[in-house]
Amino acid sequence: MNSHKIPDIIIGRLPIYLRALQRLAEKGILTTSSQELGEIIGISAAQIRKDISQFGEFGKQGTGYSIPFLIERLRDILKVNRVWEVVIVGMGDMGHALARYNGFTNRGFHINMVFDNDPGKVGQKAGDYEILDTATLVEKIKQNKIKVAMLTVPAATAQEVADQLVKAGIRAILNYAPTSLNVPSNVHVQYIDPATHLQRMTYYLD
Amino acid sequence: MNSHKIPDIIIGRLPIYLRALQRLAEKGILTTSSQELGEIIGISAAQIRKDISQFGEFGKQGTGYSIPFLIERLRDILKVNRVWEVVIVGMGDMGHALARYNGFTNRGFHINMVFDNDPGKVGQKAGDYEILDTATLVEKIKQNKIKVAMLTVPAATAQEVADQLVKAGIRAILNYAPTSLNVPSNVHVQYIDPATHLQRMTYYLD
Repeated sequence: MNSHKIPDIIIGRLPIYLRALQRLAEKGILTTSSQELGEIIGISAAQIRKDISQFGEFGKQGTGYSIPFLIERLRDILKVNRVWEVVIVGMGDMGHALARYNGFTNRGFHINMVFDNDPGKVGQKAGDYEILDTATLVEKIKQNKIKVAMLTVPAATAQEVADQLVKAGIRAILNYAPTSLNVPSNVHVQYIDPATHLQRMTYYLD
Repeated sequence: MNSHKIPDIIIGRLPIYLRALQRLAEKGILTTSSQELGEIIGISAAQIRKDISQFGEFGKQGTGYSIPFLIERLRDILKVNRVWEVVIVGMGDMGHALARYNGFTNRGFHINMVFDNDPGKVGQKAGDYEILDTATLVEKIKQNKIKVAMLTVPAATAQEVADQLVKAGIRAILNYAPTSLNVPSNVHVQYIDPATHLQRMTYYLD
């Protein structure tokens, strides 16, 4: 599919390009430039051109990038031109927020099942989903061959649940718990705790 | 404070080092190595050594890094050895989850006020906070000299609210809305939408 190994740091920027392009497309805009994209995203035009050129020749000199074409190419590269089924584990406030979140549409993901280990929550509704018992997690994820999970349990139990997810065949974990996870090298983890993202900005403040 | 300009990409990794170090400290561990940190975080030991050496000489050959010392240095660099007051705008599920989130403790942030524009929500409680009217946002943020905001409004109104936040003097916005924001160059935005983080991982899946 991809003819060479692309550095992870570039892969990390592609979803940001894709989001900005999809937003332009929603406004009915058909072409853009690395300058325009750079201003929207806050990345230099030169960096954007360099990143995108990793995947072949896109924009033509003077005419810019075709937005629909670039969106399709990025969706293909990131493998989100399909729909990945996703589980949520941990039906606290954050789990409920994610179960009801409408930002996954057209982004390549669909919430399939949601889990909690609290007997008072199992069987209740979270958005459109019935909350399932975490005790059945490994079996149900295996049955449905699900590869992607969002982890919204407390930090103290996050590693234990992550071990279960790995055992169930999960290959990508979006971790909302404010803790690091140890997983095998073929399992990918992204950390999305707000404090870490805020700390990235305070460096620049007075 | 900082003797030279550190590339943003390195700044982006420092909060991740800090989180891992704080987790080790919680376990009572006093020293670590770039190898150990690298295994926890999934970044090469060489990269970690290179990043940390930007800020001076830390670890000694053979004895590794002093965790308390490195934590204090990173907290100083990232300016989270103080407490930043933070506002949340948008008291939907995500806003409520953040208002009750306990992962900010010892990370440099404190939720100060929360806002919503829904008359049915204004005056109600979200965690320990009374929900304030977004109409009063500019005035209240200015009065309290708050610099950091978390934006959890729908995508359609995110830009409009961001404009108000900028007007109020906010310098750092953590954006949960699945949309890009246009802000002046002296205002920092971090995007924390889950789809973008998930897309960063699907590239690596089969």
